[in-house]
Amino acid sequence: MSTATEIRLASRPVGAPTLDDFSIVDVERPEPGEGGVLVRNLVLSVDPYMRMRMSEAKAYAPPFEVGKVMPGGAIGEVIESRSAAFAKGEVVLHSAGWRSHAAVPAEQAVKIDTDAAPLTAYLGVLGLTGLTAYAGLIEAQFEEGDTVFVSGAAGAVGSVVGQLAKLRGAKRVIGSAGSADKVAHLVDELGFDAAFNYKDGPVAEQLAAAAPDGIDVYFENVGGEHLEAAIDALNRNGRIAYCGVISQYNATEPVPGPRNMIKVLHQRLTIRGFLVGDHTALRPQFLAEIAPLVKQGKLRYRETIVDGLRNAPQAFLDLLEGANTGKMLVRL
Amino acid sequence: MSTATEIRLASRPVGAPTLDDFSIVDVERPEPGEGGVLVRNLVLSVDPYMRMRMSEAKAYAPPFEVGKVMPGGAIGEVIESRSAAFAKGEVVLHSAGWRSHAAVPAEQAVKIDTDAAPLTAYLGVLGLTGLTAYAGLIEAQFEEGDTVFVSGAAGAVGSVVGQLAKLRGAKRVIGSAGSADKVAHLVDELGFDAAFNYKDGPVAEQLAAAAPDGIDVYFENVGGEHLEAAIDALNRNGRIAYCGVISQYNATEPVPGPRNMIKVLHQRLTIRGFLVGDHTALRPQFLAEIAPLVKQGKLRYRETIVDGLRNAPQAFLDLLEGANTGKMLVRL
Repeated sequence: MSTATEIRLASRPVGAPTLDDFSIVDVERPEPGEGGVLVRNLVLSVDPYMRMRMSEAKAYAPPFEVGKVMPGGAIGEVIESRSAAFAKGEVVLHSAGWRSHAAVPAEQAVKIDTDAAPLTAYLGVLGLTGLTAYAGLIEAQFEEGDTVFVSGAAGAVGSVVGQLAKLRGAKRVIGSAGSADKVAHLVDELGFDAAFNYKDGPVAEQLAAAAPDGIDVYFENVGGEHLEAAIDALNRNGRIAYCGVISQYNATEPVPGPRNMIKVLHQRLTIRGFLVGDHTALRPQFLAEIAPLVKQGKLRYRETIVDGLRNAPQAFLDLLEGANTGKMLVRL
Repeated sequence: MSTATEIRLASRPVGAPTLDDFSIVDVERPEPGEGGVLVRNLVLSVDPYMRMRMSEAKAYAPPFEVGKVMPGGAIGEVIESRSAAFAKGEVVLHSAGWRSHAAVPAEQAVKIDTDAAPLTAYLGVLGLTGLTAYAGLIEAQFEEGDTVFVSGAAGAVGSVVGQLAKLRGAKRVIGSAGSADKVAHLVDELGFDAAFNYKDGPVAEQLAAAAPDGIDVYFENVGGEHLEAAIDALNRNGRIAYCGVISQYNATEPVPGPRNMIKVLHQRLTIRGFLVGDHTALRPQFLAEIAPLVKQGKLRYRETIVDGLRNAPQAFLDLLEGANTGKMLVRL
């Protein structure tokens, strides 16, 4: 019997997840279904949104099921094919999640061109995280000349937001991150005009210093203090792309809201929540714009890669603590 | 010497304004300027937004000046004219505020057709409050079939919002107000599908009962508990027209924000602040749609009229406490 390994959600975390919320199980290797493929995974994605869906309450989609494999984006090699559309040896993207082998229906697998870009890019800058950044700038009605502030700027989404805004003619791009190294990375390597470590002092003060003329767009990845500071800094007709709030996913009690909502009125602000899943139709135009920028080295990205499927739970916990720079991935 | 009377902002209120924050002063009657008119006021408007501008901090516009006449919408009769555009006896709308007589430059006076509608309507349903409702429904991207919740629904703006939404095909219109009489008025006279007294219990519970299928649009006039409840009730792609927050204008400390902002993400909500002053270009289309509805009795309005210029400060204080149904006006 050939074996495979799966990582399952063992229990719903209360507050910060722990390793005990996952179980690692050896199982019989699956067979490809009629018209499907068997994929041996090469790399998989851990993402902040997964924390929301580990809780019982419905977030934007049904919660992950306890006892089932953790879903999520992954890339692997076809090792058996019962589909005319896929040949053995081809590399595909799918969302069957944290497992060594996945039986994937043909319609849920997307062929990846590993000559055009490194395959890991398809889980990051050229994947849903890149598309999230791309869609968010549209939702925020970003325009040339805007000053943009992005929180979690050294993360997979934030780093694309900042660079893309800059490439498209932002007047000034400011990022926040959680370490001096990340701040240096933003300014020295990604071309941010300014960046600060939110652990160094109040966000409002650091943002005001970095954006003396205020901001026009805020790309929200963090929540809490960041949101309140951004609302205070936004200029008239400012816009917030409300993408995620990683600081709040572990909350067990209602979190304080921004105390300055009246500024939404005074400054005619727009706060707009969005989810990348509603914007997948943008993918062709997204790839047409972004892939060349990546290839030319104009849009840079980093990855934090952890080796070994069994380390995926720890990688995920580390991601929630901000241990990553750029996309957090697990290589099998 | 002919005299006139002015009501001035005597001091900036801290918390709830009091009568001591105003002074009533008899002055020499003004002369019309070159090319202007002298207006004897007949009726003037007191509005919640005035409270924001009585504070020192800049809100959306510079604060009212201490020692100066309270600005605001007013209607009066031309008693002297030095303008070819205006004849003695004509009735004009202007914004020279709380005074018995106003010298108004011609370009700041607008002739009122008192045959088309009662003149007080031009300070309410056909004036800036009506236009606020009209613009807010546009900002909220209201569509036929939406369920709409409006707070402060018995007020000048809220009562137009609810009726207009209903006339345009809302599936369901729900209002909140601060007394049983107002609630009855909304349902029995204005055609709201449901209404509740926010003082009777938690807004979230009353709203959930009134909107079992959730809401699509929230028109914000109140703030605080109302906003949090509305965010919880909004369906996917729901929209908030953030028009005013009367519950917070007297706040001396930062007010708690909505603790459920994560719903903005889960439900892809849009919160949009707006000010009627940015939307005056809508006035022709607004009047073309609304004036006939008012004339035909399809769009009803109430006024709470206080007699005597000297009672304007008390009328304003009462307005902030919710003593009015419909537009609060002072008749001279």
